[in-house]
Amino acid sequence: MAKKVGVLLSGCGVFDGSEIHEAVLTLLFLDREGVETVCMAPDMEHEVINHLTQEPAGEKRNVLAESARIARGNIRNLKEVNVSDMDALILPGGFGAAKNLSDFAVKGPDATVHPEVSRILKEMTAAQKPVGAICIAPATLTKALGEINPEVTIGNDTGTAAGIEKAGGKHVNCTVGQIHTDEKNKIVTTPAYMLGPGIKDIAVGIEQLVKKIVSMI
Amino acid sequence: MAKKVGVLLSGCGVFDGSEIHEAVLTLLFLDREGVETVCMAPDMEHEVINHLTQEPAGEKRNVLAESARIARGNIRNLKEVNVSDMDALILPGGFGAAKNLSDFAVKGPDATVHPEVSRILKEMTAAQKPVGAICIAPATLTKALGEINPEVTIGNDTGTAAGIEKAGGKHVNCTVGQIHTDEKNKIVTTPAYMLGPGIKDIAVGIEQLVKKIVSMI
Repeated sequence: MAKKVGVLLSGCGVFDGSEIHEAVLTLLFLDREGVETVCMAPDMEHEVINHLTQEPAGEKRNVLAESARIARGNIRNLKEVNVSDMDALILPGGFGAAKNLSDFAVKGPDATVHPEVSRILKEMTAAQKPVGAICIAPATLTKALGEINPEVTIGNDTGTAAGIEKAGGKHVNCTVGQIHTDEKNKIVTTPAYMLGPGIKDIAVGIEQLVKKIVSMI
Repeated sequence: MAKKVGVLLSGCGVFDGSEIHEAVLTLLFLDREGVETVCMAPDMEHEVINHLTQEPAGEKRNVLAESARIARGNIRNLKEVNVSDMDALILPGGFGAAKNLSDFAVKGPDATVHPEVSRILKEMTAAQKPVGAICIAPATLTKALGEINPEVTIGNDTGTAAGIEKAGGKHVNCTVGQIHTDEKNKIVTTPAYMLGPGIKDIAVGIEQLVKKIVSMI
């Protein structure tokens, strides 16, 4: 049986959802590894940012329905996904990972993590199944898993790094072409568009992250 | 100076806009070629399809603003883009390419092409600059450029192939891992998700298309 890897999406677009390039590259490299992907997202509303003007649009959309755009309709409601449905889980970045999956982007270390996101992350680490997080997603992951003191990357943003340390994590500096592996907790992270600058650059770190996660299954 | 390649988007999502995987892979392979990309889309409304249910959402969105999600905000209004702004142009697929850039998905060979899409395609071919089209996008390209009888791929869908022939094109059978080059008209096409099945499969044809287009500049 093929290995199964979950991809937890948070909408569709860098400013209010999953960063599209990071999510698509994750799917590409998983497919190249011969892995079956299980896309999922929480069924919740989010505030829309107009990506042309980068201003609030004064409109709400559904995170699950928008994430389905990246997944070509093949997506599950996070609420119905269990740890037994997958061998590993990856969280792409984008503001959605820190505005929808939690409110870390607004509240920093005092953030609240979406209860279903918190549940699946705790279940995965309790089952010693590997979890990957890209770009800003390690902030939400740390807030959910502060008790196990995860080591994570966030690029070199000192404010976010300080927030991560306050939330119980250990921040590790990392370039866009590298990953960091917290061997004890089976957590793999890479900065991607926290550093950029381009899609070919973030592809290097994301490819390594996917390969590492699949090798840890 | 770096070569410049335009990427003409039609929204954000396979059922009502640009196919996201095809668009992102186009951007990835262009970046790996050291090419500067110029994303663009028409400023027009489109009907929204809920990608979770695949049913009409009874809502309209703006093609340019939605396309900006794929382009991370770095996008131009097609109306303001001229042939002198780029050395080549690529059209990813998705239903948006045949429902927004034209109405080929509804009217087949009797389709009308969006006037700005028609203008830029005619200008590009008149200037002998290469044009690439992916998935269903060759249908819209053929309708715009029927007078020059372009040779294009559409996978193996006989209905669409017949529509293309009626619109003045010549349909060429092609696998997902191949491209077809119309050397006379400098048009390169590949079937991508007209055939699929997966993202690793469509990546093969899209990478070849991008390399061929860049080599023809």
